[in-house]
Amino acid sequence: MNADDRWLVNGAPLAAISPGDRGLAYGDGLFETMAWRDGALRFAERHLQRLARGCRRLGLPLPAAELLLGEAASLAGQHGCGTLKLILSRGPGRRGYAPAGAAQPTRAMAFYPGRPAAPAPALRLGLCRTPASINPVLAGLKTLNRLDNVLAAAEIGDRGLDEGIMCTPDGMVVGATAANVFAFREGVLLTPELSRAGIAGTMRGLVLDCAAALGISCRETRISTEELLQMDELFLTNALTGLRRVASLEGHLPPDGELTCRVAQALRERGVAEADPC
Amino acid sequence: MNADDRWLVNGAPLAAISPGDRGLAYGDGLFETMAWRDGALRFAERHLQRLARGCRRLGLPLPAAELLLGEAASLAGQHGCGTLKLILSRGPGRRGYAPAGAAQPTRAMAFYPGRPAAPAPALRLGLCRTPASINPVLAGLKTLNRLDNVLAAAEIGDRGLDEGIMCTPDGMVVGATAANVFAFREGVLLTPELSRAGIAGTMRGLVLDCAAALGISCRETRISTEELLQMDELFLTNALTGLRRVASLEGHLPPDGELTCRVAQALRERGVAEADPC
Repeated sequence: MNADDRWLVNGAPLAAISPGDRGLAYGDGLFETMAWRDGALRFAERHLQRLARGCRRLGLPLPAAELLLGEAASLAGQHGCGTLKLILSRGPGRRGYAPAGAAQPTRAMAFYPGRPAAPAPALRLGLCRTPASINPVLAGLKTLNRLDNVLAAAEIGDRGLDEGIMCTPDGMVVGATAANVFAFREGVLLTPELSRAGIAGTMRGLVLDCAAALGISCRETRISTEELLQMDELFLTNALTGLRRVASLEGHLPPDGELTCRVAQALRERGVAEADPC
Repeated sequence: MNADDRWLVNGAPLAAISPGDRGLAYGDGLFETMAWRDGALRFAERHLQRLARGCRRLGLPLPAAELLLGEAASLAGQHGCGTLKLILSRGPGRRGYAPAGAAQPTRAMAFYPGRPAAPAPALRLGLCRTPASINPVLAGLKTLNRLDNVLAAAEIGDRGLDEGIMCTPDGMVVGATAANVFAFREGVLLTPELSRAGIAGTMRGLVLDCAAALGISCRETRISTEELLQMDELFLTNALTGLRRVASLEGHLPPDGELTCRVAQALRERGVAEADPC
């Protein structure tokens, strides 16, 4: 942890949580990673909606939006730009999986000042050997159970690539280790459906909205790795880095695409300055 | 957390870990829950072997056995009987999934004095709706990614049952929420194979060893829920509570079995006093 990270734990400036916290014990909780831009939480509503969905699914009380936004502002202070991370766990509890009797949820928020490093103009991708975990009850949520992403990210680091595509054990594309994946095929925008695995990113939602507004037809569908290698255009999305084009995927080179540029342009008009300029 | 829990964090008596710990952020780590009996860690070798397998898989340095056993003894103190919980995470790290650059692993150990409450003479089980997460790379390990077990345990609590059977999304039995499951069919001992999901329990390993020593033929295999309901005998195993017979599974009543009693007797002879007496 960097010395300049600032954490609030349940509203108090603290650098510690209980080792008995169920977030540590079982990954029993959720998180959000959010862009702080021009002194405000970008797309706060989309993040809060996903958090609310997760809280309903896990049976966690949802913190009030005003509370979260107030803490974010107090952490960000005078910084115009940075990254906010929110962890919401079930809090300290008795030993054992059953969540009954957990005392009080833990709300931990940190601010990382500054703009993320400018992404490469286009990313070199590999296919990860580590599969994405399948669980229809957890799919789409940003839970604290992310060991699959961790091991996949380690592979990508070892190979010196920029990002990696994760698939289900039966070879269906889920996303990248820290991004959602989109593809164009014959003018139609495709992205993996997330009923079994993966995280429904806030930028993914915005891209689907933008594409619909542009009159581009969209489909959330099953995409095999073989199909992904055949797409006309490929791009990744992430709440912090916006939209990034794909330069190569295991050596295959998707032609740089006009349709991706239209989506990037629409994102920039919605306030995503990082959307890769074409 | 109970006031009488005692934690050591990296060897120091502490009640706090960093909110930037990757164990909290991503469940990036492992745990073991171990029985302290008669002033010693029961089946320490089996627990350390599983921990070593997990460390290799996650790329974590394995703490020295002497260190762990020494900390266990110092926590247990004069208590003859209790439960030790060890959490081993990748420790505080930078934001982002990639584990590179994580500073120092976090080793947190707690002792809960006393013998676990005597289990019911036989357990009332249900089938959980929450599926077990599928990931062949993580299967068998006791990782900190346990949200599936948490949600399944919540179901069982809501229904007032003793335990619950978890299955893969395609209906294959994985185990109970906090136990492995065994069945006898026509004299053969069956237990779910764990190549896709589940935890390879230390007591599960001991049962397989005992059964082999008794000349009982054993198979680790795929078992559907329909098949499980047709078995001649059913029992659950867990490091703390030994072996427990199953009284009912969704109303179905497996006949109380002679073979289960032979296994329980063998476990008692190996030092598992809790193995359900027949």
